[in-house]
Amino acid sequence: MTEAKRTTGNFFEDFKVGSKILHAVPRTVLEGDMSLYIALYGDRRPLHCAREFAQSLGFQRETVHDMLVFHMVFGRAVPDVSLNSPANLGYADVRFLQTVYPGDTLRAETEVIGKRETSRPDVGIVWVHTKGFNQRDEVVLQFYRWAMVNKREPGVATGDDDAPELPERVATENLHIPPELMIDRFDAVATGGRFFWEDYDPGERINHPQGITIEDAEHQMATRLYQNNARVHFNEQLQKKSRLGTRIVYGGHVISVCHGICHDGLENVVRILGFNAGAHANPTVAGDTLFAWTDVLERIDLGRPDVGALRLRLVGVKNLDPSEEPIDLKVKDPATGRESHHPNVVLDLDYTVLIPRRR
Amino acid sequence: MTEAKRTTGNFFEDFKVGSKILHAVPRTVLEGDMSLYIALYGDRRPLHCAREFAQSLGFQRETVHDMLVFHMVFGRAVPDVSLNSPANLGYADVRFLQTVYPGDTLRAETEVIGKRETSRPDVGIVWVHTKGFNQRDEVVLQFYRWAMVNKREPGVATGDDDAPELPERVATENLHIPPELMIDRFDAVATGGRFFWEDYDPGERINHPQGITIEDAEHQMATRLYQNNARVHFNEQLQKKSRLGTRIVYGGHVISVCHGICHDGLENVVRILGFNAGAHANPTVAGDTLFAWTDVLERIDLGRPDVGALRLRLVGVKNLDPSEEPIDLKVKDPATGRESHHPNVVLDLDYTVLIPRRR
Amino acid sequence: MTEAKRTTGNFFEDFKVGSKILHAVPRTVLEGDMSLYIALYGDRRPLHCAREFAQSLGFQRETVHDMLVFHMVFGRAVPDVSLNSPANLGYADVRFLQTVYPGDTLRAETEVIGKRETSRPDVGIVWVHTKGFNQRDEVVLQFYRWAMVNKREPGVATGDDDAPELPERVATENLHIPPELMIDRFDAVATGGRFFWEDYDPGERINHPQGITIEDAEHQMATRLYQNNARVHFNEQLQKKSRLGTRIVYGGHVISVCHGICHDGLENVVRILGFNAGAHANPTVAGDTLFAWTDVLERIDLGRPDVGALRLRLVGVKNLDPSEEPIDLKVKDPATGRESHHPNVVLDLDYTVLIPRRR
Repeated sequence: MTEAKRTTGNFFEDFKVGSKILHAVPRTVLEGDMSLYIALYGDRRPLHCAREFAQSLGFQRETVHDMLVFHMVFGRAVPDVSLNSPANLGYADVRFLQTVYPGDTLRAETEVIGKRETSRPDVGIVWVHTKGFNQRDEVVLQFYRWAMVNKREPGVATGDDDAPELPERVATENLHIPPELMIDRFDAVATGGRFFWEDYDPGERINHPQGITIEDAEHQMATRLYQNNARVHFNEQLQKKSRLGTRIVYGGHVISVCHGICHDGLENVVRILGFNAGAHANPTVAGDTLFAWTDVLERIDLGRPDVGALRLRLVGVKNLDPSEEPIDLKVKDPATGRESHHPNVVLDLDYTVLIPRRR
Repeated sequence: MTEAKRTTGNFFEDFKVGSKILHAVPRTVLEGDMSLYIALYGDRRPLHCAREFAQSLGFQRETVHDMLVFHMVFGRAVPDVSLNSPANLGYADVRFLQTVYPGDTLRAETEVIGKRETSRPDVGIVWVHTKGFNQRDEVVLQFYRWAMVNKREPGVATGDDDAPELPERVATENLHIPPELMIDRFDAVATGGRFFWEDYDPGERINHPQGITIEDAEHQMATRLYQNNARVHFNEQLQKKSRLGTRIVYGGHVISVCHGICHDGLENVVRILGFNAGAHANPTVAGDTLFAWTDVLERIDLGRPDVGALRLRLVGVKNLDPSEEPIDLKVKDPATGRESHHPNVVLDLDYTVLIPRRR
Repeated sequence: MTEAKRTTGNFFEDFKVGSKILHAVPRTVLEGDMSLYIALYGDRRPLHCAREFAQSLGFQRETVHDMLVFHMVFGRAVPDVSLNSPANLGYADVRFLQTVYPGDTLRAETEVIGKRETSRPDVGIVWVHTKGFNQRDEVVLQFYRWAMVNKREPGVATGDDDAPELPERVATENLHIPPELMIDRFDAVATGGRFFWEDYDPGERINHPQGITIEDAEHQMATRLYQNNARVHFNEQLQKKSRLGTRIVYGGHVISVCHGICHDGLENVVRILGFNAGAHANPTVAGDTLFAWTDVLERIDLGRPDVGALRLRLVGVKNLDPSEEPIDLKVKDPATGRESHHPNVVLDLDYTVLIPRRR
């Protein structure tokens, strides 16, 4: 019996630095995807759910949520990049570019930019640069990410030692302000927001009040919506034998849940401009209740009178409410002295958003 | 560390009788919302799912379900009205007005019309009148509701004693018959209904055969779809400490589940005209199986030969099938002599619907 | 108290051979249904999710998935045919015909073509032929199916012995190749597929790598989306008393889950042409993890140079991964010598698909 047609995905040995992968399955974003995004995360940004509000800002209609664009592009790349990946390790220089509308079709390409061995004989690390395009071949999103990838032949060393240097943040000149944006008709009644760019001070912390308990049916429907088919999210029988003992929630789902939670206190944010750095510090599973806080890192002057940017740190925490039980983001192992994320931290995301200035 | 940007919602003390609140986050209803409504409740009314049927009745296309309009308007008001509400107590004079289509954008305003202290020192009761508008500022829905609201300072009396008088029912002259409705082409094959206005007798009971078991993923997705962000529906960690011990299902979800169940025997109903009175008699949680019966209260002659109205009582019951195990709607406490709803009753809704007359 | 309006559905005695049933509730397929189909099954066929790909093949836009058409037509018929059915027994000569687009409205008609008593006194078997139509009265799907149906009066013999003879397969001349299809611009980058008609050999087996764990919220939302209201899928209280002890998953949901799994290795399949025969060999319940393999049965030459057909056997298995733990499709009871499906097999589907030929 032949195994010729069994899809196995790429293993560490299969990635060649410099090679480019054209991912399959272009995806037309539909109105149904917009509704499901709200059903899954309770998003309240009027740019994405209120037609006349979006039009008043110069957009054609309500736009596709930045995170939904992210998931769609990420999902294209999974079968080629991370089908055999036990963990996504990080993101860098994630840029949100051309506005996406329902009816646009997204596709993705990935270039392999680095790989190296790890201290473990069975896995290596692969670095990639992925770009998402619309049907007019305009770039809607681009990002670096690196992931742990299983070897086809565990224990056989490849000699790879090619870790790339990546930007520490999205450079201010690379922040894409939608050219169609006209902020003079910005309606803060529609957002419910009282705070503008000038009102956020570096060092300030916002404890968001919402807590959200994760269900298997929810993260599975979300992950399938993005056509992300990594096995660890869906196969309980397989995962029962894993270290975690159950299905692991797609990291992007965790970002969207936390992004939904962080709406309170950031109501006037117009869109995400970039992720500077991000880490899924610990795994999330069904039954976990997620909380979040935001630290204001920096107020970025974009050199224009209407809008500015805020650099924020969004921290997602599981199973304890940090507003009632504050925790340190990082803790030191008393034995090794090594510092790592608090075991309840599930997301540590350094990102930059666009927000109107006071007039 | 400042708490200035932490959203806390309004407490009992914050409501001023006579004040008006413009709620944030207008919401464009999409085709995805229509599909999700069917996926959540199995609705079978062809006016909402069959384009040519809707057009044959004079509508532009399939219309947004009355209950979906209700949830969308209700959801707008939650962050301002009931974020700190342990229970919604009742509805009165709920009028379903202008027809809503996919593509319409809904927003809401609320006037505070009364408040009073209760026997409990930590909560008061607030009465509000909420109106939902479309993008042309036409009223699509308006209702009175009253809810228990937590005090910011439990135990500090405010002296409020301002309970309003509310209509006992939607007056017949306030029942809105869609002016576009042409009933002469009504197709009972499309509804599957055999009964018309004349066939329903006051005193008659219809035991609906369906039973529906509630899942956490379902009520959470529904409640988020409506952008209703009351914490009690989503935060298991918080709710574990509550009297109920788990997440409570949004009362509107219970109405929609029961409304889906009550389709059998009421197939020819065209739309909901109003809620006369409604109570969430007992809480619903995931794992409960809901059943429902309908009592015909009144046949209302609208003075026209094509359509009439029926006043119905929809009773939702959890975890016992009232067609097999009939129960009394109300029971008397032997100790106190006080009458209250049977502990398995979750919904007691007195409402009025539009239905064709026999030709 | 009258029971006149209580919907009970048809029992075995109610079916008359030769009678025709016009099913209620026409259903306009919306973009939301397309998105939900992907969220429920992770479908990756670009014909159904990529507008420009679909247009490059001659279609107007992305088309409604064949299985979604199947579910919608099947769902129309449930209230009349199988509300009192403990099990669907089989399908024959299922033909997928006219292309369906979002915005099309589907309705269904069923002719009763046979019925007979069984060895059990409480149930009989009913054979029906169901056709689905669009709003232009074009047939989009037609199929034979037979189901066990409860008797109204268990134990009272009816003398029915009218089993029809059905085609063993969809005849090649009845396979509907969409006339609009132009395969010369077929883009295998968009599908991700490497194999064409000539590459599949009868006798070949494809073990699909994915395993999918079923959740109650998922199969309930799916089944309601299709407005299939059979009680066994939704009523845990009722089902607790059944032999199975819990809600049973709609068989069509199992087909779609397995069809999603079988994508890997069959990426270039354009559409389903027919089901030759199908059986739900054993029940599926929430918590089961489904796996699947495909056996290539036959390469069918359609007499044209651009496309061919493949006859495939899709086998769905629960709670064991057949690629790691191969099983026999059928097992013999040592006591009776009777052969039946392996107890872990949930689906045995013999079907035919359309696929491009190598150029």
